Amino acid sequence: MNSYYSADNHGPFQLIDIGRFELTEGGVLEPCHLAVATHGQLNAAKDNAILVPTWYSGTSKIMEQVYIGPGRALDTTKYFIIVVNQIGNGLSTSPHNTGGALSGPNFPKVRIGDDVRAQHRLLTEHYGIRRLALVTGGSMGAQQTYEWAVRFPDMVERAAPIAGTACNTEHDFLFTETLVEAITTDPGFQKGSYRTPADVAAGLKRHAKLWTVMGWSTEFFRCGRHRVLGFDSMQAFVDGFMTGYFGPMDPNNLLCMAWKWQRGDVSLHADGDKAAALGRIRAKTFVMPIRTDMFFPPSDCQAEQQLIPGSEFRPIESLDGHLALFGTDAEAIAQIDAHLKDLLAQPAPVLG
Amino acid sequence: MNSYYSADNHGPFQLIDIGRFELTEGGVLEPCHLAVATHGQLNAAKDNAILVPTWYSGTSKIMEQVYIGPGRALDTTKYFIIVVNQIGNGLSTSPHNTGGALSGPNFPKVRIGDDVRAQHRLLTEHYGIRRLALVTGGSMGAQQTYEWAVRFPDMVERAAPIAGTACNTEHDFLFTETLVEAITTDPGFQKGSYRTPADVAAGLKRHAKLWTVMGWSTEFFRCGRHRVLGFDSMQAFVDGFMTGYFGPMDPNNLLCMAWKWQRGDVSLHADGDKAAALGRIRAKTFVMPIRTDMFFPPSDCQAEQQLIPGSEFRPIESLDGHLALFGTDAEAIAQIDAHLKDLLAQPAPVLG
Repeated sequence: MNSYYSADNHGPFQLIDIGRFELTEGGVLEPCHLAVATHGQLNAAKDNAILVPTWYSGTSKIMEQVYIGPGRALDTTKYFIIVVNQIGNGLSTSPHNTGGALSGPNFPKVRIGDDVRAQHRLLTEHYGIRRLALVTGGSMGAQQTYEWAVRFPDMVERAAPIAGTACNTEHDFLFTETLVEAITTDPGFQKGSYRTPADVAAGLKRHAKLWTVMGWSTEFFRCGRHRVLGFDSMQAFVDGFMTGYFGPMDPNNLLCMAWKWQRGDVSLHADGDKAAALGRIRAKTFVMPIRTDMFFPPSDCQAEQQLIPGSEFRPIESLDGHLALFGTDAEAIAQIDAHLKDLLAQPAPVLG
Repeated sequence: MNSYYSADNHGPFQLIDIGRFELTEGGVLEPCHLAVATHGQLNAAKDNAILVPTWYSGTSKIMEQVYIGPGRALDTTKYFIIVVNQIGNGLSTSPHNTGGALSGPNFPKVRIGDDVRAQHRLLTEHYGIRRLALVTGGSMGAQQTYEWAVRFPDMVERAAPIAGTACNTEHDFLFTETLVEAITTDPGFQKGSYRTPADVAAGLKRHAKLWTVMGWSTEFFRCGRHRVLGFDSMQAFVDGFMTGYFGPMDPNNLLCMAWKWQRGDVSLHADGDKAAALGRIRAKTFVMPIRTDMFFPPSDCQAEQQLIPGSEFRPIESLDGHLALFGTDAEAIAQIDAHLKDLLAQPAPVLG
């Protein structure tokens, strides 16, 4: 077991058994455990719930630390905020914590839609929730947010996908392929049968470098933001921050999430017709890209936003690129907070 | 010998022996051959010469095809245009065409400044040229352009660095490191002692994928520009265009150029003081980044431009990112042409 994924590091969270869970691509998780962190109280009407899914490599912990608290948009005094760790992230059922035939490299393929179906079962059966005041998340959390709004349009009152797309682009698919290959070409990877992440240290470091190149922005480095964060050179930043972050993670977990990330695509709900799929959304939706995001630039996100009825385009100004999501730029987080407060103040649409 | 680098593919060009050439980092090329393609006629006053250095992986051929001709800014009826292939590019003295102790992986480290000194020797000793009407190039050609303007300020009347920087950024250094590692981690690379590029095919393909991710732009792919170029999917584009382009190249040649690219930095002429170095430039300078360039975004280039006396910022609008340099976007090339014509119409500054 990998001690990185401990409750000490990422807790508190509950492991909730949602039972036997069939995956879209074949394979069954039995049972499927979702690691869930909740904040605030569900009211009697059960209409104050906010769902927050997680991003690639992230867990519920960073969502709590950066986005949730009293007085924030995700206000623990008003809302019941449910952060659900995505399948494969190391806390929920994942390659590294699954024994038997589905262990490690034999873990089945998981889709964004599987996560959303699993979360739907959790919310309806475990909590008895039938309506969500808001779904919001960043990056792969945005993919899940879009999937929720398209798949369950009568359940989502408001949606705020941040720094992510509804239909992953060919460009981003290829970038993620380079991440995957950074890991799988490490001789220590051994087709996924390595003993510990340390066996794949070189591949994980190359993976971290690619994240460094694309995850922040050229302006971030030109303006010395990495120095402001306490690293006196790019090398120190790559080693200390980025490799320090990714190095302890389980490679098969990362690959499970990467496969899922590459294939996020709500148009699958409408025979490949993106406009038709996004046209189903009834949630009041704010699309919130980050100006300097090299994965999901505002132009890509705006093209999708324009297909969502009644939606608004709410870009975030930051030099920190995609990884402004980490909370490194307090002003970016303040903008996100302000937009989310504005969204939560909007009247709920009349759903089914 | 690698048939890719033949005169059939890249000619016509002359191989000019500039004699024994000592490199900044140690090592001697004896002799150093520069592959040179000239267009037009040098006039009697020898004041109509334009120097065009080459970019990473490029040769004089693409500069001829995309940028040079009658009626173009680089007008063969008015100017004597000298395209000099950079050391290590496969036509000039390079790892793959050097025998003996400096062959292949044992080729010495070359700096941008070495290329510029070699070109200076060529121009002054071989052609008797003492003044350049213009130096212009893209990417590593821009690095050489800046180096010329700073190192030989009394010789360069006009300078047009396109899609490149005077001082390579930490961000770009790291990106180039990922390119290098894509090649060197291929087991077939054998520390540079592979037999043919085909032994390193997997590494060269990963290198091509990274170029695909960063070399174009997200907008390029969103707008289906790769389909317009004749490839019906990203996979076909990666295989047919990008891997087709890089696959035949010699890995040690690419690594020689990559090392040089990473370390391009005119501030070395002023003890690391970028402002002082750029302040030396006397050439009338147009700084011409491409709007969607993910290597050398306009913001990075403008920060340098503002340090160059009398310079102008002339950004190029294109969806094609850095590789608009390839000529895939005719409108971008038309903009470059218009700016270069404008620059060539400016009075020459009074030099020393």
